[in-house]
Amino acid sequence: MNNYSEKGLLPAGLADMLPPTASAEASYTEALMKVFTANGYLRVKPPLIEFEEHLLEGAGAALSSKMFRVMDPVSHRMMGIRTDITLQVARVATTRMKQDPRPLRLSYAGQVLRVHGSQLRPERQFTQAGVELIGASEIAADAELILLASEALNALNIPDLSVDLTLPTLVPAICEELGVEEETAAKARLALDQKDAAVLDDFGDTLSPILMALLKAAGPAADAMRQLRALNLPGRAAEQIAELDRLVTLLTEASPDLVITIDPGEFRGFEYQTGVSFTLFARNVRGELGRGGRYHLIDGEPATGFTLFMDSIMRAAPRSKGPKRLYLPFGTSMETGAQYRAEGWITVRGLAKAASDSEEAKRLGCSHVVNSGDVTEVA
Amino acid sequence: MNNYSEKGLLPAGLADMLPPTASAEASYTEALMKVFTANGYLRVKPPLIEFEEHLLEGAGAALSSKMFRVMDPVSHRMMGIRTDITLQVARVATTRMKQDPRPLRLSYAGQVLRVHGSQLRPERQFTQAGVELIGASEIAADAELILLASEALNALNIPDLSVDLTLPTLVPAICEELGVEEETAAKARLALDQKDAAVLDDFGDTLSPILMALLKAAGPAADAMRQLRALNLPGRAAEQIAELDRLVTLLTEASPDLVITIDPGEFRGFEYQTGVSFTLFARNVRGELGRGGRYHLIDGEPATGFTLFMDSIMRAAPRSKGPKRLYLPFGTSMETGAQYRAEGWITVRGLAKAASDSEEAKRLGCSHVVNSGDVTEVA
Repeated sequence: MNNYSEKGLLPAGLADMLPPTASAEASYTEALMKVFTANGYLRVKPPLIEFEEHLLEGAGAALSSKMFRVMDPVSHRMMGIRTDITLQVARVATTRMKQDPRPLRLSYAGQVLRVHGSQLRPERQFTQAGVELIGASEIAADAELILLASEALNALNIPDLSVDLTLPTLVPAICEELGVEEETAAKARLALDQKDAAVLDDFGDTLSPILMALLKAAGPAADAMRQLRALNLPGRAAEQIAELDRLVTLLTEASPDLVITIDPGEFRGFEYQTGVSFTLFARNVRGELGRGGRYHLIDGEPATGFTLFMDSIMRAAPRSKGPKRLYLPFGTSMETGAQYRAEGWITVRGLAKAASDSEEAKRLGCSHVVNSGDVTEVA
Repeated sequence: MNNYSEKGLLPAGLADMLPPTASAEASYTEALMKVFTANGYLRVKPPLIEFEEHLLEGAGAALSSKMFRVMDPVSHRMMGIRTDITLQVARVATTRMKQDPRPLRLSYAGQVLRVHGSQLRPERQFTQAGVELIGASEIAADAELILLASEALNALNIPDLSVDLTLPTLVPAICEELGVEEETAAKARLALDQKDAAVLDDFGDTLSPILMALLKAAGPAADAMRQLRALNLPGRAAEQIAELDRLVTLLTEASPDLVITIDPGEFRGFEYQTGVSFTLFARNVRGELGRGGRYHLIDGEPATGFTLFMDSIMRAAPRSKGPKRLYLPFGTSMETGAQYRAEGWITVRGLAKAASDSEEAKRLGCSHVVNSGDVTEVA
């Protein structure tokens, strides 16, 4: 019989979440979901595993190497453990909820698993919570999502929130309008994403100045928009800038305190996005709190959504102290216990007569004890 | 590209939980957890997968054939997807929380997966919520758990609850006291479990009458205890009956309305239990709501716990209607929306000007619409 004493009790990147963290994660997740629900988002819960090909549709293909697979002995087909929930929710929207009126607002929370952690995120199991808004192409939909994410994170009292906007489709549109060939366009996009000013100079007299200007424009929204407007980009690129401008206006009007930055050249992690994409941060907190943006469902329907990462949120959200623990000496009646719980106490019942009730209370981590019908603080 | 139109979208026994079921399951689970927390149970969250040998310890071995396995490319060891959470919580108690004061009260909620469903439960993914009370051998601990389960289920307004008590160790103790050989004892135990009166007659003049009496005793607690006391069983068997008697007294005193039945011969599903075990039912609801009982941790520490099955609980709990949906016409301010949400409405925002706000409200499943600053019911 294994006595658990060996090293490496759990596989790397997998952990037991202990008190009080497990409880905090659950309350924070439900607090976020409550905000989504109050804004009309309907909760769905896809299964943890399903046929692998459905998990690898479209954007899912990028996560193929990160997916655990298991054989289904019932169907003799391969199943995958989900690495992300967004794609599953998109599948639900295009199948069982295809007849539901649009725009369709859906929310979800749950666990995902990955075969490998990353250097920044060594964990292999995450909790995600998020929403998808399906069938709306209006920029008001993008605004609704960013404001919703902000409302949800504010509900957890996370200080110093900011949202960083990007247009992963902007550089491709510029290059197409300018007739830049694809290979060069891809290099330009990467150089800008990596903020590699030296390389940005190598794209000729027309493209290089634009790329440099985009690099320079990155920063607080008002200033960034001024620079982007002044660029006078051609055709579809100009339309994208105008759309971004409308979004910034909507956000600023609706939530004047929201800190908005723009990084027009960022695209990594947003490869499959088709419009404005965004990342949520809290100052001085490692890692993104969440990210989202526009994409198309496999049947072509427009969609936008975001996912919040509970591990970052746990680092960002101030912990509440929670109710106090009250020791109920052995023999305390059920009614008495129920009354104290109704008043907001956590009650801890003595299972046998203790030599000293207050010592026993202290030993069990209780700050208070019931003493001849009164609540006394433990010295 | 797969268009999801094929038959068998999801593997058998796995399902997308849709609105409003997914939301109800989450609220019910958190309502149960809230009761556990208020009674001093600390939440833990073990990972969904871990090294398979840890999931197969002790009672886990019985679930070996039901466990999905995946290879861990990091450690090159086999991991299993958990089929149950109890064993993981027991592992946490004997390792990372070994130094925490006893009795240790832990709670958990989460998903488990099984390779095969059963005829009664074709599902392969379940939600479980439960508690473990570790390091207490007093019968008051058994009473605390049964009363806690009842308090939690009452919090969901589940009507007509009952708890069925059994002593899986009773027939083995009787047989040992009477010197019955093991093979015969196992047959006797099975015949009694199956309530096979014809077979019960075949165990000789001493054992058969006792088995028949145990069979006859099954039923409402007061009457069952009278019959069991009258049996005058030998030694350790009598001690077990006396312990059961104390438990019934404790439960009846604490919760006079709780319906208690006793089935002294039932043992299937409780093979690894070391004392009083119990099953929770709601009248006219298919399947157990939960089950629990005494066992030993692998280091010998006494423990008792129970697991609630959210699928049965969803069938048993009355659904609440939930808040009403209010349509906010395009252009409604953020503050207005926030105010209505603070009053308890679910708000659904228009993303573009609608031809008729009340028609649009109706189309989106809203019962009310904001009309010139007032809330109007949609005809």
